Amino acid sequence: MRGGNAQGVLYGVGTGPGDPELMTVKALNAVEAAPVVAYFCKTPGRGNALTTVTPYLRPDHTLLPMAYPVTTELDHNTAAYRECIETFFDDSAEAVAAHVEAGRSVAVLSEGDPFFYGSFMHLFLRLRERLACEVIPGVPAMLAGASRLPRPITMRDDVLSVVPGTLPDAELHAALAVAQAAVVMKVGRNLARIQAALAAVGAADRAWYVERASQGGERVMPLADAPTGKAPYFSMILVPGPGKRV
Amino acid sequence: MRGGNAQGVLYGVGTGPGDPELMTVKALNAVEAAPVVAYFCKTPGRGNALTTVTPYLRPDHTLLPMAYPVTTELDHNTAAYRECIETFFDDSAEAVAAHVEAGRSVAVLSEGDPFFYGSFMHLFLRLRERLACEVIPGVPAMLAGASRLPRPITMRDDVLSVVPGTLPDAELHAALAVAQAAVVMKVGRNLARIQAALAAVGAADRAWYVERASQGGERVMPLADAPTGKAPYFSMILVPGPGKRV
Repeated sequence: MRGGNAQGVLYGVGTGPGDPELMTVKALNAVEAAPVVAYFCKTPGRGNALTTVTPYLRPDHTLLPMAYPVTTELDHNTAAYRECIETFFDDSAEAVAAHVEAGRSVAVLSEGDPFFYGSFMHLFLRLRERLACEVIPGVPAMLAGASRLPRPITMRDDVLSVVPGTLPDAELHAALAVAQAAVVMKVGRNLARIQAALAAVGAADRAWYVERASQGGERVMPLADAPTGKAPYFSMILVPGPGKRV
Repeated sequence: MRGGNAQGVLYGVGTGPGDPELMTVKALNAVEAAPVVAYFCKTPGRGNALTTVTPYLRPDHTLLPMAYPVTTELDHNTAAYRECIETFFDDSAEAVAAHVEAGRSVAVLSEGDPFFYGSFMHLFLRLRERLACEVIPGVPAMLAGASRLPRPITMRDDVLSVVPGTLPDAELHAALAVAQAAVVMKVGRNLARIQAALAAVGAADRAWYVERASQGGERVMPLADAPTGKAPYFSMILVPGPGKRV
């Protein structure tokens, strides 16, 4: 841990699925060592990763919120949107780098694991050749969800497919059609499309719905009993594998 | 945490990828609360999960090794092998249950995560209706390996396929052919077959080889530079996804 050296360290800290006790010792040590704690958010002062580490913050920690620009008026497929969001990540990277280059290590909080669909990559890919970086892996939300099921998510020679629910219908179907065990992430407004795709490939009966895994208000139920229409963005659908040997 | 009640708790404890600092606070608490620590092994007193928790063990912990029977003389596809191994898991479950039913909680150590290809399932499926069980998720080895790469394993709308290297050639090819991001586990003696399958699907150039992720003697290199022929069983091959938006 380097905090007071000529240059600090950029830590990508996996904060795990939400329960503060599901942070690793290494993640806690990084937060303790870094005088600056940065996090992506919609609103400064809020966000799941910040909530997770709050029990471990001290009054002398400097908080660096990186608030996504409001882009509701921009079509996400336009050049204007891409420029807006790329500029935001450029600016965020500079704000982080300024601390690290002045000798203040920065712990960037990442829900779950930093390299598993995390926004930390936008900083890492910009700064990895400029700063000393350390990526601290974390418990992914999907395994916290899986820990609540009555059987393992993968056994023996199961192939596991992790599928973003944001995929278009054809790709969603194709990915689920070849899956043995499956995790569908980013459920949110895609719930009905995912339910239809799982039914089409014959996997709906063995699928589970998990909301807010490891956090307050956690809900776990067979997919058949799940809400219809829309779910929280961080809910997931889990399909345990058959566990056959081949 | 219940340790001294009429009946104890069976904890499936994910110990993470090997580095003791990559255990979660919850896993440490379970080991601290449980008077009995059980682990699967080839040789009592050895094994990766036991090594990981050793810094946290106390002299008053009772260790319960569950040593796999020697089955080198048995063909693994025979009824004789299956009976031998099922009897072993039955006996192990009874040994664990005897402690829990006498009021002594048992922490069963599971490398990585208990429900992600772990042997803990053999106990859990036998005991889940008989005992109070708690599954504590852990950092899977694949994310510790991914944390060492120069780019994220999954970004944006990548589909991730987790593929056991033990699959027969045809299934290995089929699984890797449809993968965007991929993790191949259980490499060991299957290394050459996996290398051939990745080359056949055009993914060898962007694949990485990781050995002993997060442990002493860790090795990370492009697959092109990896050893040929045979690798340690717990090595892995990682193929970062393209990270395109669809």
